[in-house]
Amino acid sequence: MPLTVQDIAETFPSLSLLTGEDSRARALSFGSQAPNEAIGIARPKTTEELAALIKHCNVHDQPIVTGGGMTNMVAATVAQPNELIVSTELMNQIEEISPEDRTVTVQAGVPLQTVHDAAADHGLAMEADLGARGTATIGGMISTNAGGNRVVRYGMMREQVLGLEVVLADGTVMTSLNRVLKNNAGYDLKHMFIGSEGTLGIVTRAVLRLREEPPHITTLFLAVPSYDAVCKLLRHFDSGSGGTLSTFEVMWEDFYKLMTTPPAESAPALDQGYPFYILIELSGKDSERTEGLALELIETATEQGLIVDGLIAKNEAERQKIWNIRDDIPQLLQLWPMKAFDISVPLSHMERYIEKMQADLDKELPDNRTVIFGHLGDSNLHVIVGAGTDDKAALHRIEEIVYGPLPGVHGTVSAEHGIGTEKKEFLKLSRTPTEIAMMKQLKGMLDPNNILNRGRVLSA
Amino acid sequence: MPLTVQDIAETFPSLSLLTGEDSRARALSFGSQAPNEAIGIARPKTTEELAALIKHCNVHDQPIVTGGGMTNMVAATVAQPNELIVSTELMNQIEEISPEDRTVTVQAGVPLQTVHDAAADHGLAMEADLGARGTATIGGMISTNAGGNRVVRYGMMREQVLGLEVVLADGTVMTSLNRVLKNNAGYDLKHMFIGSEGTLGIVTRAVLRLREEPPHITTLFLAVPSYDAVCKLLRHFDSGSGGTLSTFEVMWEDFYKLMTTPPAESAPALDQGYPFYILIELSGKDSERTEGLALELIETATEQGLIVDGLIAKNEAERQKIWNIRDDIPQLLQLWPMKAFDISVPLSHMERYIEKMQADLDKELPDNRTVIFGHLGDSNLHVIVGAGTDDKAALHRIEEIVYGPLPGVHGTVSAEHGIGTEKKEFLKLSRTPTEIAMMKQLKGMLDPNNILNRGRVLSA
Repeated sequence: MPLTVQDIAETFPSLSLLTGEDSRARALSFGSQAPNEAIGIARPKTTEELAALIKHCNVHDQPIVTGGGMTNMVAATVAQPNELIVSTELMNQIEEISPEDRTVTVQAGVPLQTVHDAAADHGLAMEADLGARGTATIGGMISTNAGGNRVVRYGMMREQVLGLEVVLADGTVMTSLNRVLKNNAGYDLKHMFIGSEGTLGIVTRAVLRLREEPPHITTLFLAVPSYDAVCKLLRHFDSGSGGTLSTFEVMWEDFYKLMTTPPAESAPALDQGYPFYILIELSGKDSERTEGLALELIETATEQGLIVDGLIAKNEAERQKIWNIRDDIPQLLQLWPMKAFDISVPLSHMERYIEKMQADLDKELPDNRTVIFGHLGDSNLHVIVGAGTDDKAALHRIEEIVYGPLPGVHGTVSAEHGIGTEKKEFLKLSRTPTEIAMMKQLKGMLDPNNILNRGRVLSA
Repeated sequence: MPLTVQDIAETFPSLSLLTGEDSRARALSFGSQAPNEAIGIARPKTTEELAALIKHCNVHDQPIVTGGGMTNMVAATVAQPNELIVSTELMNQIEEISPEDRTVTVQAGVPLQTVHDAAADHGLAMEADLGARGTATIGGMISTNAGGNRVVRYGMMREQVLGLEVVLADGTVMTSLNRVLKNNAGYDLKHMFIGSEGTLGIVTRAVLRLREEPPHITTLFLAVPSYDAVCKLLRHFDSGSGGTLSTFEVMWEDFYKLMTTPPAESAPALDQGYPFYILIELSGKDSERTEGLALELIETATEQGLIVDGLIAKNEAERQKIWNIRDDIPQLLQLWPMKAFDISVPLSHMERYIEKMQADLDKELPDNRTVIFGHLGDSNLHVIVGAGTDDKAALHRIEEIVYGPLPGVHGTVSAEHGIGTEKKEFLKLSRTPTEIAMMKQLKGMLDPNNILNRGRVLSA
């Protein structure tokens, strides 16, 4: 029988527990309007305190939602009325940083920006980065295998994790705080937990890989005449930049127009009306070398007709201006009511996929306003469909149109945001029945009472 | 009851099956003198044929050893008398290569070198590489999460795998041939199988990530006065090379002396007698830029006293000469009877760890001759201890001396070779009882009859 907050408070008198209005007032997911109906928010300060709480909940069949920065985009942390939120926000210490080993050991509730800052103090970087860096926590980023803007060079959050501590559903603490790049001593169990969205265990601590911070970043913004040119430029810059390419972001024409037309916060950096705009960053040794290389690559690409206009950011302020065009979320909300997607499609299929998707949307929802941008270096597209209606059936039809063709083009319904509760219906489009059966088998093995993030990712 | 080869031949009349002397004559593991006592070698040509065979074996409790190139170093593929070897050697086709998507889809039995060659035809590279490239198969490299010479820049085999097809112990085929860099649709199950040494399933196909082949490689060979200088040079070259550092290999003095003294195949490239020798490669855009950068980094390092002698390979022949010093395996065998280790130790502990290990060896085995080299950019050491005796107790004592202190310095008993049968006794030094229990739980879930690589990695 599920617990009450009174039960929990009595069993764990020193546990920090938010109840009533203190709990209800907390936002539960990025952009979520849903009220927080959880019975309360427990905030353990240590792994041991968290483990004891989970063990107690498991015995009493009390479902738990784990919360980090609450910035996920798939309603994973929107609590049901009988659920207890377990927040890692008070487990927020950087425990150790070793410049010699280039590792940092952190508690799960540390925000990403805090890790960036601590690493920078030693000339190092933790090379996972995303817009919500001020609020997203390391624990949340690990449990969701977060992506972001530098994946083309450094991989996803998974690739930054060397070691992990996880609390299992029965309260067992599995401490595996490996610190070395290579460890083939038996199964590498951390990968089961990375990206499983908190359904198999709760991340409490981690050892992250640090790398040398590139001394200089050159930022380019290019207008490009065709999709074919976009693909050629990816290979041109990737092969020609000698290992320095760290970002390759693409904006489709309609996205760029929306983001540079009032009331957008940005004016156009290049003229509107080109088919594609590419934001490229090369992270290298110094400005002379890196910019010299960039100019050379631009010149050869322009000769081949791959670039029709472009600029190089001359300083950090100009760099921020370009990124602001991409990151102006309030302007994107102009399209509300909308559906936002986070799909991957192999480059060889992407152009035809988008043409068909747009045609189907136009046929069935003539008032749709669709804009596309994405981490093209990773085959990852963000598709935002302004529906022109808040009719539920119409919004669901948009999902079917966007997701439906993905199996035929080796695409996926989620590149980086995960499944949460919002995409559960569509998981079967990206995973086979055998895979889903094995996911359920794993879930059953590690959480037989189904107390951890129940109903997220998988149906019961 | 286990099967006979007659049973198998009758049930699967079209299966390629080696028996008798054809089977016995096959070597079973790198450097192994053990006779092949398997009942035979089955060589399926397709996933379906392999799956049907495994299903049949599972029903009849017939233990299976999966063989790829048979180049593992931990006696994993040395068969017991009642075991059937299932070799993927006839599943050796590259099924598809897409330069646009930068992926290659291969069958498990394809040798590494074949993938390198196919990728190079398109100006691309599959960036896992190791000495046994002519024989090691992709399936074997995935099941063991192979390491090699470029991990510091590109990661291990795991990081090259986008999609996987696996045959489970009950003959179920799990096809998950993902082709995109980012796919967060549910649990990423492939990671359970990568590095589990064939104990959880048999890899039959894979999609691998290809990258742009760096147009130019600059190879440096440097003599270095101290361990402190080695560590400083790693950061100096990693931060100063703007993303181009692809190899950072270190040879200790005694190793270098052994490998450049007759009957070694190499003469000294630099004088003997320096404490450390470093082999560095920068893979960049062109020779002018990459060598220019290298010279600049050498100059600043020399000014700081970090380098006492050095050379740059002027052409591929000179590059090969340097690598040959490192790769002269027959010369290493001069130390026979010996024990070879493949450990990782964080850089901050490495020097003191080695001093203590050497002192303990000298105290207990005065005739030992110990040489050390390794992928220092990955904290991975290869320690070769010439025992001066083939006494079993003495050889075991060497293992205890090398492995014993590892838990105290956050080291691991296997960086890249895996556990196989040879290191099972020492797995507990690198993994906690909770981790080992979970490994067994996973094994029990996926292979309840324990037919796949029985007794490898884990004890029953």
